[in-house]
Amino acid sequence: MDSSESFLADAEQCLGPRGLTRDHELMEPWLTDWRGRYSGRACAMASPGTTEEVAELVKICARHGVPIVPQGGNSGMVGGATPDESGTALLLSLRRMNAIRKIDANARTATCEAGVILQTFHDAVAEERMRFPLTLGGKGSATIGGLISTNAGGTQVLRHGSMRAQVLGLEAVLADGSIFSALTPLKKDNRGFDLKQLMIGSEGTLGIVTAATLRIVPEITDRIVIWAGLGSIASARELLLHCETSAGDALEGFEVMPRQCLEAVLDHLPDARAPLAGDHEWHALIEVVGDRAEDDDLRERAETMMAEAFEDELLDDAVLAANETQAETFWLMRDSIAPAERERGPAMQHDISVSVERMPAFVDAAVDRIEADWPGTTAVAFGHLGDGNVHFHVIAPSGSTPGVWEDSDGRKISAQIYEMVCEWGGSISAEHGIGQNKRAELERLGDPVALALMRRVKQALDPEGILNPGKLV
Amino acid sequence: MDSSESFLADAEQCLGPRGLTRDHELMEPWLTDWRGRYSGRACAMASPGTTEEVAELVKICARHGVPIVPQGGNSGMVGGATPDESGTALLLSLRRMNAIRKIDANARTATCEAGVILQTFHDAVAEERMRFPLTLGGKGSATIGGLISTNAGGTQVLRHGSMRAQVLGLEAVLADGSIFSALTPLKKDNRGFDLKQLMIGSEGTLGIVTAATLRIVPEITDRIVIWAGLGSIASARELLLHCETSAGDALEGFEVMPRQCLEAVLDHLPDARAPLAGDHEWHALIEVVGDRAEDDDLRERAETMMAEAFEDELLDDAVLAANETQAETFWLMRDSIAPAERERGPAMQHDISVSVERMPAFVDAAVDRIEADWPGTTAVAFGHLGDGNVHFHVIAPSGSTPGVWEDSDGRKISAQIYEMVCEWGGSISAEHGIGQNKRAELERLGDPVALALMRRVKQALDPEGILNPGKLV
Repeated sequence: MDSSESFLADAEQCLGPRGLTRDHELMEPWLTDWRGRYSGRACAMASPGTTEEVAELVKICARHGVPIVPQGGNSGMVGGATPDESGTALLLSLRRMNAIRKIDANARTATCEAGVILQTFHDAVAEERMRFPLTLGGKGSATIGGLISTNAGGTQVLRHGSMRAQVLGLEAVLADGSIFSALTPLKKDNRGFDLKQLMIGSEGTLGIVTAATLRIVPEITDRIVIWAGLGSIASARELLLHCETSAGDALEGFEVMPRQCLEAVLDHLPDARAPLAGDHEWHALIEVVGDRAEDDDLRERAETMMAEAFEDELLDDAVLAANETQAETFWLMRDSIAPAERERGPAMQHDISVSVERMPAFVDAAVDRIEADWPGTTAVAFGHLGDGNVHFHVIAPSGSTPGVWEDSDGRKISAQIYEMVCEWGGSISAEHGIGQNKRAELERLGDPVALALMRRVKQALDPEGILNPGKLV
Repeated sequence: MDSSESFLADAEQCLGPRGLTRDHELMEPWLTDWRGRYSGRACAMASPGTTEEVAELVKICARHGVPIVPQGGNSGMVGGATPDESGTALLLSLRRMNAIRKIDANARTATCEAGVILQTFHDAVAEERMRFPLTLGGKGSATIGGLISTNAGGTQVLRHGSMRAQVLGLEAVLADGSIFSALTPLKKDNRGFDLKQLMIGSEGTLGIVTAATLRIVPEITDRIVIWAGLGSIASARELLLHCETSAGDALEGFEVMPRQCLEAVLDHLPDARAPLAGDHEWHALIEVVGDRAEDDDLRERAETMMAEAFEDELLDDAVLAANETQAETFWLMRDSIAPAERERGPAMQHDISVSVERMPAFVDAAVDRIEADWPGTTAVAFGHLGDGNVHFHVIAPSGSTPGVWEDSDGRKISAQIYEMVCEWGGSISAEHGIGQNKRAELERLGDPVALALMRRVKQALDPEGILNPGKLV
């Protein structure tokens, strides 16, 4: 029995036949990331059912020196849950750990295991007339553990913050198989370093998240969704400031897109119509919500807010969705930008942030610079203006060869965009993380002090390097 | 020239005569913590004026192996900024670094240096018609750097969170003298581990906070302060739930105190009168605020909220402060509990938390148990019920000798309380931190996995142990 067989025998004994497979067909869907950019191999796929099994398994891996690649819904954007091609790693699926242990509407907390799918969690919380204030496109497959490990964002960060802000308690298995258990949510706890913060966003390189206690909030009693047409992204920023002042905490979403994105969406969605008459260079999608019984005048307040904005010449035109169906249509149009853009040919996508107040100037400068330096390209920036975070896409000149353009000009364009972002004091990864995809760029452009700190922390918590090697740091 | 003289010569050359003193009279006020429980000695007191000077100084300390004790306003509660008695450490005062670099009302951020005093910061932010949503009793001396290093709390945590939630960007000098610079506030940034979270609350053991970018929020347009009388702390929790549902984000404070605390305050404040007629076992102080122009019906909403609570029999009686003067009087009574209690003789104070929903049962159980086990003592719990955090004070039997009782029965009582807190899944330090004061108790009662993790992180970031030795971990 060679060392690999000996490891697999130990792992199988720990997990039982249901918990470990080497069947290629069963493993295959999980060995390529969902964007199809990374593929790898694994010696087996483990599917433990309890935290104790995860801990035991990690101890076995540590003993045999087998690297572990934790995986949730496999819907990450940067190849962070895909093993390398060596086939030495164990793919550790958390999907069987899918219990929602407790929902406490009074305490506004819910405790669930890492493998719970976001949509499932939303539904369970809604049954208690509460909601979990984080959502994103991949909600049908993304798991709580993956969302925590990548500190996921989405469209409600403006008011509620990213995943980090939702995590009140955490349980994780460390590199030596010990269990870090801090599920009890204490609003105040100053017993030293806040270790759960280290786990959040660490992409499985410091520990394996097995369960969490999350913040839930009251269900919304009403929402008003507004579409506004604007002359520039600078105006959009002015309008955002106005809405923040006027609506306060009721402002839950503020997304922007340029004219080209709306055109692409209208081409992509056969039944869609432009929400506004006339041409507008920029569009904003705004959502205000009520979550108390007192908020029965929400529509009136939203109308006042927009009328004032119009008087102050912050926008060209605006419309309030007349009903929930129209509100959903507006959001569908926003959510269709990415698929609509994909139909327009090869493109390089960049998930970047700068400080909110600098974003309009950055977008204008970066679009001009890229389109000037790379004739024939179209650069568009859309998304979460309120968070200082846009998706900056560069579409290849027509006639470019898919699969070739990305690896030649596309790669150079990305490098240039990331350099600009750093010059502006921003982040080359606002939401998606580093994974395999941006590791070299982080190495090239990251702050050397921060990188050195991260390496020290990684070395301290995972000295043998068995947790998700080749990712992040 | 011995090694100590050689170090001081290097340090003086770095900082100049204004930046370094060995004058005992100048140092003396800073060598005892403000509660007078810890005294130490230092080889000198450094007062650098810039981050670069701090960095240079830390390099000199590292070279000479001189430990550093960073200090802000010296108003901590656990001896975390007091050197030991060996006299080998350098006391590093950040108080000269007191510039408020920028206040940006639009971006809702302010950047200031570590030595800025909280009250000064409040005043500066108020001039821009904004506010910094964290306040506490020591605001006249506590500094921003100290508040960050201890993850301070206060009376607005219920809505706004503790210091951790206010820190958007951070600058710190690490143990090797390198500068970790992340002052630019990015609402979204997923470039690996969130290193600033490690610095927050680490009590100067992982790095020296030199500057921060903080969250500011709109000034309040109105506030309503309510005093309610209740039959039990369980009722107070029910009332809290009602207010959370009814007022939503407008609920900014919810403090409780038992009858004994009010009596002590009335004895302590010569002009004070009980806010309510009749006897009530428990009292709650509630604040709701408006921070938008639309909030002009705040009083009406608060009245409705309390009328509903009365109908639901959640309280015995309540009164809304008629004006700002009365509102301030209500808060003065709350803030006078600690000094009023001190007049009642020797006492052991405990800053503890359990999950909010368990707090009423915990308080009832712990008060009964302590008073039964230690005849003649009076146990009172008061404070931030909304945060699951109370100050649990045990007053010595009358006739106990101050200075003796604390070190005999008092110490045993504290140990018993901390054990109970741990049994209930709570924290032995909700707000004040560990410092010197609770280090042994953390060692005794802390989760071994968490403690091992902390030691690894400490070892990784400060391998020579020069940053605030003898504190926390």
